[in-house]
Amino acid sequence: MATRKEVADLAGVSEATVSRVLNGVGPIKETTRQRVLEAAKKLDYQLNAVAASFARGRSGNIGVVLPHVPKVRLFSTYYFSEILSGIGEAARAGGQGLLLLYREPGAAYDYASLFHTQRVDACVLLGTSSLPQERQGIERLAKLDLPFCVVDQRFGETGFPAVCADHEEGTLQAARHLLGLGHRRIGFLNGSPHYSNSLDRAEGYRRALAEAGVPLNRKLLYEGNYSRKSGFEAASGIYRDLDSLDAVLCANDRMAIGLAQGLRERGCKLPRDLPIVGYDDSDAAALFDPPLTTVQVPFYEMGRIAAERLLRRLSGDTGEDLQGEGSSLVMLPTQLIVRKSSQSGEE
Amino acid sequence: MATRKEVADLAGVSEATVSRVLNGVGPIKETTRQRVLEAAKKLDYQLNAVAASFARGRSGNIGVVLPHVPKVRLFSTYYFSEILSGIGEAARAGGQGLLLLYREPGAAYDYASLFHTQRVDACVLLGTSSLPQERQGIERLAKLDLPFCVVDQRFGETGFPAVCADHEEGTLQAARHLLGLGHRRIGFLNGSPHYSNSLDRAEGYRRALAEAGVPLNRKLLYEGNYSRKSGFEAASGIYRDLDSLDAVLCANDRMAIGLAQGLRERGCKLPRDLPIVGYDDSDAAALFDPPLTTVQVPFYEMGRIAAERLLRRLSGDTGEDLQGEGSSLVMLPTQLIVRKSSQSGEE
Repeated sequence: MATRKEVADLAGVSEATVSRVLNGVGPIKETTRQRVLEAAKKLDYQLNAVAASFARGRSGNIGVVLPHVPKVRLFSTYYFSEILSGIGEAARAGGQGLLLLYREPGAAYDYASLFHTQRVDACVLLGTSSLPQERQGIERLAKLDLPFCVVDQRFGETGFPAVCADHEEGTLQAARHLLGLGHRRIGFLNGSPHYSNSLDRAEGYRRALAEAGVPLNRKLLYEGNYSRKSGFEAASGIYRDLDSLDAVLCANDRMAIGLAQGLRERGCKLPRDLPIVGYDDSDAAALFDPPLTTVQVPFYEMGRIAAERLLRRLSGDTGEDLQGEGSSLVMLPTQLIVRKSSQSGEE
Repeated sequence: MATRKEVADLAGVSEATVSRVLNGVGPIKETTRQRVLEAAKKLDYQLNAVAASFARGRSGNIGVVLPHVPKVRLFSTYYFSEILSGIGEAARAGGQGLLLLYREPGAAYDYASLFHTQRVDACVLLGTSSLPQERQGIERLAKLDLPFCVVDQRFGETGFPAVCADHEEGTLQAARHLLGLGHRRIGFLNGSPHYSNSLDRAEGYRRALAEAGVPLNRKLLYEGNYSRKSGFEAASGIYRDLDSLDAVLCANDRMAIGLAQGLRERGCKLPRDLPIVGYDDSDAAALFDPPLTTVQVPFYEMGRIAAERLLRRLSGDTGEDLQGEGSSLVMLPTQLIVRKSSQSGEE
């Protein structure tokens, strides 16, 4: 790794000048400043800032990087608000600030620079997907062995530190519930397969049908993007298929509520005309009419545990090696919550 | 204000050494380091960090300081999640990170140090109250002319920069609505008077009664803390007073929902037995059964506008002087939303 002297030599200035430029102290001629910055960049001297930040004391911030979805108020979604509450509580208890940063979904994000510029001491990654560009930035973090943790997304065998919930089991339980009520033709409104949690749900759905000896009918698979709007839009197709559906399983409550609203606009009576099961057990699930049968996910605990793992690592507690295969993935349980929306008998 | 030279002289070291210590670069003898830090502390040299941070480039963060309320998941409350979504969108658009920090309610908080330690370039203050200890930290910010903005709280004639909503008008409209339905004995479940927004609501309630020639009856004034639980707890007293109440106005939807749940546990049919009006028009208001008549508050816009004002100030746009009496308070309109909860005729 480059030394301050190498940067000074390349820029043709003294080491003191390199320090003054990189620390922004004292008056510096702009041309000199540029020469030093270019030399530092060329030699990737920036990396030394990570080492320096320890001498310098930490930023005191846990970073949280969220996808930016135009027009969606992320903090107002049960999913992100609960995870953030958990991260926030752990950060507060650990005396750390919470630095929220947005990234463009599907694009490469330079997580590492958050560390190199000393904006964060550790970083929690939310709403990540398996799209290659998103994966690259995370791989760099892992390669540099920087403290980070992914929430609710697994990256196969990478061993990226992650805290997830058992969506396969949750969806299995939800599908078994509908099968147990005698339903066979069960539609599944899932989210994008770019999310491992969508794939886990699909696997739980598949297993439940297989257990019951019900062949999987691809015609009954629908896809939304976890927004209420996408559930509302799915209603048109599901309404057309109504005669070939006994019930519908949704990958989250927001899509379930959107679907219910869309079906009502078409004159459906719920749950009589179509039993619906949501997922997440958000506040809306219990308030909705009919109250949603759903799957409870410990989002708050997922956020808290992810942040606590990072705080332990920052405190030098090596009892748990976040990069170690064994402990890199924490999987929390999910639980079926039965309410009226799945029971066509009730009104 | 102290200069680097004065610190160097007091510590008996060179100015270069002072810089190296305060910037944590290069090897320094621990005893020397301590001497410099003590000298800097004694001379309050830290303050110069504010000036230095501009030479050094900014932190790139907008700070948001929130009260820490044990067991309450702030991000999961409509109030904070909407304000944060607005601040977050403005910060993102301005290329700034959002640094969330918790403070203890009622205690003094050293906002200024967030600037002195260069953790934030500007700061939004949420959930502040008029308690003297809370006010002190804010006064220091104003005295140092640091860029900050308070949301949903006014501090009398201080001229603190603030973005608020017209809760007096909102509550006036809500009370007029109940009076218009023929109700005269209108209970008011308000929040703590330490919040100017509670006092504004109380004033709107008082004005509506005065307009209608209805004497204000202190026996019909109840107090909660804006939590669902406090509304639930208020149900016992309100249930006892049921015979002397025509309707109840609540200062937010959460208390209205808690009150409704508490009254139902006591066998009340709503809205028949007691028309209830909420406040905020949270997601829950429309989902609740009966749907809540409430007052819509532009929380998202309040957060967005507060952050945009700060970003403008950071960008050196002096078109608006945040400290100037004239423009220091931005007041946004509120709007009554009529649903079933206030109409005892409907079921």
